[in-house]
Amino acid sequence: MDLTMVPIGKVVGGRHEVRDDEWGDVDASIVLDAAVVGDDAATGLEEFSHVEVVYVFDRVAPSDVVTGARHPRDNRAWPRVGILAQRARMRPNRIGVSVCELRRVQGLRLSVRGLDAVDGSPVLDVKPYMAEFAPRGALRQPAWSSELMRGYW
Amino acid sequence: MDLTMVPIGKVVGGRHEVRDDEWGDVDASIVLDAAVVGDDAATGLEEFSHVEVVYVFDRVAPSDVVTGARHPRDNRAWPRVGILAQRARMRPNRIGVSVCELRRVQGLRLSVRGLDAVDGSPVLDVKPYMAEFAPRGALRQPAWSSELMRGYW
Repeated sequence: MDLTMVPIGKVVGGRHEVRDDEWGDVDASIVLDAAVVGDDAATGLEEFSHVEVVYVFDRVAPSDVVTGARHPRDNRAWPRVGILAQRARMRPNRIGVSVCELRRVQGLRLSVRGLDAVDGSPVLDVKPYMAEFAPRGALRQPAWSSELMRGYW
Repeated sequence: MDLTMVPIGKVVGGRHEVRDDEWGDVDASIVLDAAVVGDDAATGLEEFSHVEVVYVFDRVAPSDVVTGARHPRDNRAWPRVGILAQRARMRPNRIGVSVCELRRVQGLRLSVRGLDAVDGSPVLDVKPYMAEFAPRGALRQPAWSSELMRGYW
């Protein structure tokens, strides 16, 4: 059963072209759509230092979506793993989820730093980041993923 | 512009009725849909201890979605804040995002612990959790959110 999503806003500013790395210092805004959410939708959000943003990689053509396995970044030095074992853009439903610093809230405009989404990306949700939503228990991840992430922020 | 999402699978087992708290010990599976993703979509995922799951609170009636502000859990002891300043279910697009422990991968069946989604919830995405996607910089959050989360896991 398909589900219809209505963007609550979009990313404005920041990076205009898709690049893999060096997102950490990118400043951008999330401009919420007053036709979709109320004027007070972000009231109180300024008390949180970070937000979790759910957005859409809309620059990925649906025909480029991978549903099986591939080498991350097409790098054959890394193992061929399923699209759900990597965070690549060309994934089913093209959804990105990322935590970034919230610098300012002005009504329906949120100023953020370090959001890895390009200008114009549709935003489906913004959630406050709470420490309690961090992973519980010890983390384990393969070496290739740490190598890939080395230059990401 | 509306976006159409196709669930890649659903939550099977675990909790059948919606409750606010005590999710930490809930065991469930994510069963991926072979009509949507390839047999190798989750290959290599077992090398990660945790996954980030994007799912839909489909038990929330669209008419119950809040687009403005409310007291979290309707508790007037806590401030009235915007729906985007809380993680309540009745939010625009009804999207939940949660990190949980990945216990086993068997083809397209992922066994997880501590996923705060009820049986039958449509799953839009599964991502490997990488330490590098944790918040960068010091966290700050209001007292009410820590109080609310006290019994969550």
